[in-house]
Amino acid sequence: MVQTELIQRRDKIRWLMDQQNIDAALIACNVNLLYTYGQIISGYLYLPLHAPARIFVKRPNNIKGEFVFSIRKPEQIVEILQEEGLPMPKKLMLEGDELPYTEYTRLARMFPETEVVNGTPLIRQARSIKTAMEIEMFRRSGVAHAKAYEQIPAVYRAGMTDRDFSIEIERLMRLEGGLGIFRVFGQSMEIFMGSVLTGDNAAHPSPFDFALGGEGSPELPVGVNGTPLQEGYSVMVDMGGNFNGYMGDMSRVFSIGKLPEEAYAAHQLCIDIQNEVANLAKPGAVCEDLYNTAIAMVKEAGFADRFMGIHQQARFIGHGIGLEINEMPVIAPRMKQVLEPGMVFALEPKIVLPGIGPVGIENSWVVTAEGVEKLTNCEESIIELG
Amino acid sequence: MVQTELIQRRDKIRWLMDQQNIDAALIACNVNLLYTYGQIISGYLYLPLHAPARIFVKRPNNIKGEFVFSIRKPEQIVEILQEEGLPMPKKLMLEGDELPYTEYTRLARMFPETEVVNGTPLIRQARSIKTAMEIEMFRRSGVAHAKAYEQIPAVYRAGMTDRDFSIEIERLMRLEGGLGIFRVFGQSMEIFMGSVLTGDNAAHPSPFDFALGGEGSPELPVGVNGTPLQEGYSVMVDMGGNFNGYMGDMSRVFSIGKLPEEAYAAHQLCIDIQNEVANLAKPGAVCEDLYNTAIAMVKEAGFADRFMGIHQQARFIGHGIGLEINEMPVIAPRMKQVLEPGMVFALEPKIVLPGIGPVGIENSWVVTAEGVEKLTNCEESIIELG
Repeated sequence: MVQTELIQRRDKIRWLMDQQNIDAALIACNVNLLYTYGQIISGYLYLPLHAPARIFVKRPNNIKGEFVFSIRKPEQIVEILQEEGLPMPKKLMLEGDELPYTEYTRLARMFPETEVVNGTPLIRQARSIKTAMEIEMFRRSGVAHAKAYEQIPAVYRAGMTDRDFSIEIERLMRLEGGLGIFRVFGQSMEIFMGSVLTGDNAAHPSPFDFALGGEGSPELPVGVNGTPLQEGYSVMVDMGGNFNGYMGDMSRVFSIGKLPEEAYAAHQLCIDIQNEVANLAKPGAVCEDLYNTAIAMVKEAGFADRFMGIHQQARFIGHGIGLEINEMPVIAPRMKQVLEPGMVFALEPKIVLPGIGPVGIENSWVVTAEGVEKLTNCEESIIELG
Repeated sequence: MVQTELIQRRDKIRWLMDQQNIDAALIACNVNLLYTYGQIISGYLYLPLHAPARIFVKRPNNIKGEFVFSIRKPEQIVEILQEEGLPMPKKLMLEGDELPYTEYTRLARMFPETEVVNGTPLIRQARSIKTAMEIEMFRRSGVAHAKAYEQIPAVYRAGMTDRDFSIEIERLMRLEGGLGIFRVFGQSMEIFMGSVLTGDNAAHPSPFDFALGGEGSPELPVGVNGTPLQEGYSVMVDMGGNFNGYMGDMSRVFSIGKLPEEAYAAHQLCIDIQNEVANLAKPGAVCEDLYNTAIAMVKEAGFADRFMGIHQQARFIGHGIGLEINEMPVIAPRMKQVLEPGMVFALEPKIVLPGIGPVGIENSWVVTAEGVEKLTNCEESIIELG
């Protein structure tokens, strides 16, 4: 990756560090290394406030460069910093919400005179405003994602289960360049490549805080559960669009034959909500206001009890996306955060209809100077399969 | 899952807790919840030494049962334990190598009078000896894994890249029931469903401590890198066999046309190593002795510089498997651990040949009363594609 891009990202972090009197960061987690170093290593990036970053690599053994040091264990870092003439930090941040307890305390012990604080929220704040290059990555990802989804009707066969259908869609995503891996913030959130939900499985509560759940299996309780795709069911495809490290997000709805009229009305309501929220979304718009707008429209239309699930309803309609699927901001109740140019988020108003399945829409959006721009462009109406 | 199985697993953990004077465990991580509760929840399992386990569920909202309590936040746990008449623990264990720092410290703060220790190594020790039911899960997984691999020659097409080939094999794994998700211990280890390595990509060092690496991409630096499958190359398929939560492990080698004679000799050497190690492996066998046996055979045959990689060589030939791909024991230098009945491990002697690719073998094995038994049975010779 070009060095100027990495310096821009590091400087975004440094700017926030400076506000909190943090004079160094030690970064060890994969997504944050990808963000600040452009690639994942087994090692550490040490980011001083007023000096160039230093890279400490355990593996692989073929990385060389200015400011790159090969180490066997993290305890060597302090000695090398001293040889480099760098002062010990007064206040150091580590990735407290991401590093395991024993790793965090091991790293903290290397700096006995230093105040050590949790840097995860700060790094997530920096990452929430995307650079021009990151937005371009999302733009390309959206094109690939749409190209995969456009082929979905061609892989449907009568008699498939949700699982069979999902397998063919996963393959389409991979053939269009999908990396497969689905990165989520938070150690307790797991999913494979995304979800394909049909019929009443869409209403099944899940342990994971995704927009909709799905029964899955005890070993992975989210998504498909083997429900046959049958006449009168809707099917929502919600795959993670990880084509280049950036987790684009898009959902589209298909139907087996025709659906009851209510389903088309509910689907249109979700599209109307999307368009209204997108219309209001601009720099300065407050996340809770966008959420409340959606809720008011849903109540007015009489779908509040089936919005974002039935037995367990998700309390958000959108979420930031980036190197992980759940970044800042969150479009949810009581979220006072305002949109800023460069934020990228998924907006996903969805309704689950008993005996039919899920309807609604999800697209990825970037906040521009004046408003928002859709990054995932393909047909939004319910597409009949067969 | 049957309650007796869960009680057996919890008692294995309790037995080790008792030896360390630990009188309670609070379990929060997905694989350990799956192990002790039979399903993944967003919540906690509290395991007292001398009382039944209590389950605290945040999500999903549809779990009921004796000793099951619905909570919004973990701080409610202490109050409920008091209402249940359970004493505060004197020494409590938390999953210190797995829980993020901020979650660990939040949970520890709930027990201000309690000594809190890292319970991850203890739980991993308990999990390293599989129950009869877990071994049966591995047995079934091995059958499904072999069934998927037997179909590999049928999905090969001339002109494919390693990536194209991988996508079709991933689909075979999914169609045979693979869950897709690949669970690894350690926050810095990532991989998609497994790896397909051909030609010199097999020698590419990776940040991740798998047996072989592969260049992958900066966003996921392991596995395929788009190398065309071409005449005279070997291809090693090493997919994670997660059909029911248990990560079976198996590698097989294919060839595009015929390979140079040296490749067949190196492949046979790996099979000979496998058979010799399997012959020595029994309860009481020491892991480092098994490793040293393999190294002696490799040196004798003149392949030491290409064993387990070239530029960066893995320092193990086998590893425990279970709910995660990298469990105890590890068959590696200086590992004094002895095999015990019920341990399940992958054994994977592999050699990388420049200009050709990887050869060798990997199977999953269970330690029985007298020796070991292979759980992944299918053709072990190099299979010519096309």
